[in-house]
Amino acid sequence: MQLENSKGTRDIPPEDKIVRNYIISRLVEVFERYGYSPLETPIIEKYELLAAKGGAGDESDAMKEIFTLTDQGQRKLGLKFEQTLSFARFIGMNPTLKMPFKRYEIGPVFRDGPIKLGRYRQFWQCDVDVVGCEDMVVDAEILLLSLDAFKSMGLDAYLEVNNRKILKGIIEFAGIKPELADSVIISIDKLGKIGADGVRKELEEKSIPDDQTAKLLSAFSISGSFEEKISTLKGIIKGKIGVEGIEEIEQVFSYLSEEQKKSINFNVSLARGLGYYTGTIFEGFVRNSQVTSSVCGGGRYDSMIPALLESKKEYPCIGISFGLDVISDVLKLSGKEFGKTVTQAFVIPIKARKQAFSICQELRKAGINADMDFLERGISKNLSYANSMGIPFAIIVGDKELKENKVKLRDMKSGTEEMLPLDDTITKINGDYVNEPNGK
Amino acid sequence: MQLENSKGTRDIPPEDKIVRNYIISRLVEVFERYGYSPLETPIIEKYELLAAKGGAGDESDAMKEIFTLTDQGQRKLGLKFEQTLSFARFIGMNPTLKMPFKRYEIGPVFRDGPIKLGRYRQFWQCDVDVVGCEDMVVDAEILLLSLDAFKSMGLDAYLEVNNRKILKGIIEFAGIKPELADSVIISIDKLGKIGADGVRKELEEKSIPDDQTAKLLSAFSISGSFEEKISTLKGIIKGKIGVEGIEEIEQVFSYLSEEQKKSINFNVSLARGLGYYTGTIFEGFVRNSQVTSSVCGGGRYDSMIPALLESKKEYPCIGISFGLDVISDVLKLSGKEFGKTVTQAFVIPIKARKQAFSICQELRKAGINADMDFLERGISKNLSYANSMGIPFAIIVGDKELKENKVKLRDMKSGTEEMLPLDDTITKINGDYVNEPNGK
Repeated sequence: MQLENSKGTRDIPPEDKIVRNYIISRLVEVFERYGYSPLETPIIEKYELLAAKGGAGDESDAMKEIFTLTDQGQRKLGLKFEQTLSFARFIGMNPTLKMPFKRYEIGPVFRDGPIKLGRYRQFWQCDVDVVGCEDMVVDAEILLLSLDAFKSMGLDAYLEVNNRKILKGIIEFAGIKPELADSVIISIDKLGKIGADGVRKELEEKSIPDDQTAKLLSAFSISGSFEEKISTLKGIIKGKIGVEGIEEIEQVFSYLSEEQKKSINFNVSLARGLGYYTGTIFEGFVRNSQVTSSVCGGGRYDSMIPALLESKKEYPCIGISFGLDVISDVLKLSGKEFGKTVTQAFVIPIKARKQAFSICQELRKAGINADMDFLERGISKNLSYANSMGIPFAIIVGDKELKENKVKLRDMKSGTEEMLPLDDTITKINGDYVNEPNGK
Repeated sequence: MQLENSKGTRDIPPEDKIVRNYIISRLVEVFERYGYSPLETPIIEKYELLAAKGGAGDESDAMKEIFTLTDQGQRKLGLKFEQTLSFARFIGMNPTLKMPFKRYEIGPVFRDGPIKLGRYRQFWQCDVDVVGCEDMVVDAEILLLSLDAFKSMGLDAYLEVNNRKILKGIIEFAGIKPELADSVIISIDKLGKIGADGVRKELEEKSIPDDQTAKLLSAFSISGSFEEKISTLKGIIKGKIGVEGIEEIEQVFSYLSEEQKKSINFNVSLARGLGYYTGTIFEGFVRNSQVTSSVCGGGRYDSMIPALLESKKEYPCIGISFGLDVISDVLKLSGKEFGKTVTQAFVIPIKARKQAFSICQELRKAGINADMDFLERGISKNLSYANSMGIPFAIIVGDKELKENKVKLRDMKSGTEEMLPLDDTITKINGDYVNEPNGK
């Protein structure tokens, strides 16, 4: 048998999983700080749900990428390809849930798609959503939560924000038919990547007349402060939907301080590909990073759950998804140090294995992540092991040390060694080691 | 479309997920304390691996319960039904890994089996394993880790421990053919459930002669202290494998203090069903709980990875798996209080939404999990919401309060209210709330 991962999947070894755990612990802390509670939905769902209108059923690419399977009872099932559909099902099945319902869900999703660099068939999504509140106060909250999430990891992030209704207003202003709006939005979404010429070409292929495209592109070139952009837009957008969009984004920004506005930029050409967004949309980026792609993104999707549930009840929703892989890349490139192991102290016995074993237990009792040599290797082999793993302290336990009721503490970075009673050793390690979970 | 979970799966709502997150955070803390590092292997594996000898290939029931699927490239895949096989594959694919390699992995596994009460097709396994150490010191470490894991959750656990080699020694002593050993062990495993008569009947069906069964059952009725049991066994077990087992368990116990031995019981009739165990085996239980089933279990499986890798290299292994569902049941029945939400303070604006929004941000900045009313409900509706969710504090923000530069803090349990500056409110909440992650 050829030992290998199934195509498009990979193992996350300790040195990478430590970084991911750090990110997740920070995200969870911030999500809970904002009053979001954890929810877990299963990885296996009925195929019917995954393929429903409002979900993958709206996009033929997504349909093709659903991993399908059948159980022993020949039921047609699939693996979730995003968190939102299961969330929507949960909402629909629990009509007595108190609204607004704020939840986060972190876990793997699956897509049977083509493999590219950095694209896997199993990857994690870290989602935060609120259902049951149409007021823009919650849109403002989600924006601040995103900034705080990155701040908690020591990253300086900013957000690009827009509103789908404003896009529709501009499309209307350009004289483009409303039924072409979604298709035009997909092209506009590429403005940053393919430039105005590229978008012009795409729209030509979509049979949009030149004068309409020109009007469209002029609207997307507006600049200035938030207030200036709003004022320009008010001059050209007169239709109901567009005016509503302007009102909404003004409301969102009314909750922001001047300081916060420095990291939240109104970008009228931000479109985001997904068809289901209905209002506020946004994407996050990290400043001064080699990684230029977005690290989070989301928006309002007020129609998705009602469409899925075939319900007349209103389920206004807004959510955001954080990309674990890309944030992990950003952090690793940021110079932040992560160990290859979580171990803080490595105990090396010299013919004193039982004593080393109990010293190890004492260290653990005192809150120190401790490990010991099990293989009766020599001191130099053990020190080189501790060094290669990035363990900050080694503790040598031999006859000489035990006679004095002490251990030899070695600071692996500086190489200095001292004979200390165990209590002092513990104090020293605990004092030196900033006890940040999984990060140093 | 009928909204429902796929058969055998379920949603974990916030009030349950909070308990699970608490358990996982405690397990992770203890695993890392003992020098185990996190690893993540994918949920989708090649079917060939899952069905290999050493894995499900040894048990036809397990084979039937593998969820199978194919990707767009028609590769035959399956969902992992336990963590160990993927761990073994990872070890085999990374020959330069430093040994011993200590890792933990926590996540869902899948079995397409019959649904019974409390048995699901997706459930979590929390696994700790060491590969690369055959010395019994690591067996002792794993036992102490298990006890500490439960202690960290405020649970009083004990372990039943045995050694497969002792079982084989007893089977040999009884005169039963070695090739029947595995089958006999499966029957012995049921001794606690079906009693001596039940086992006698099963062994009769397996064509074991009565005198052999009698000898077997007499050996399993030995009692007394650890030392007394060992001494009795030494009197009857003379074969190589059995003597080795006795030596091994003596070594394991030599690392334990008298205090620790009170919670680690040598139980010569413990068998554990799985065929792949080769030495130390153990199961954990919680004292004084209505839940009487085991909460963790594991053992040594020195032959599994070499068999799987078709390798002559030795890969001694020992591991333990904690059952998230059963521990969750134990904790909920233990009277330990968990909130329905993680929110500590709920801000109620009275026509002062913007001010409430910034107060909410101040609370979050101060490390308090805060939420606010978005729906402009009245005070009594909001208080009853906070009450029903078990949120400990409400903060009322209205004209009167703002004029005095204060807020009204309401202790939801006692119902007492006081007007306080925001700073004092924060101090009060932070002081009152024991900031244990997700548990109170």
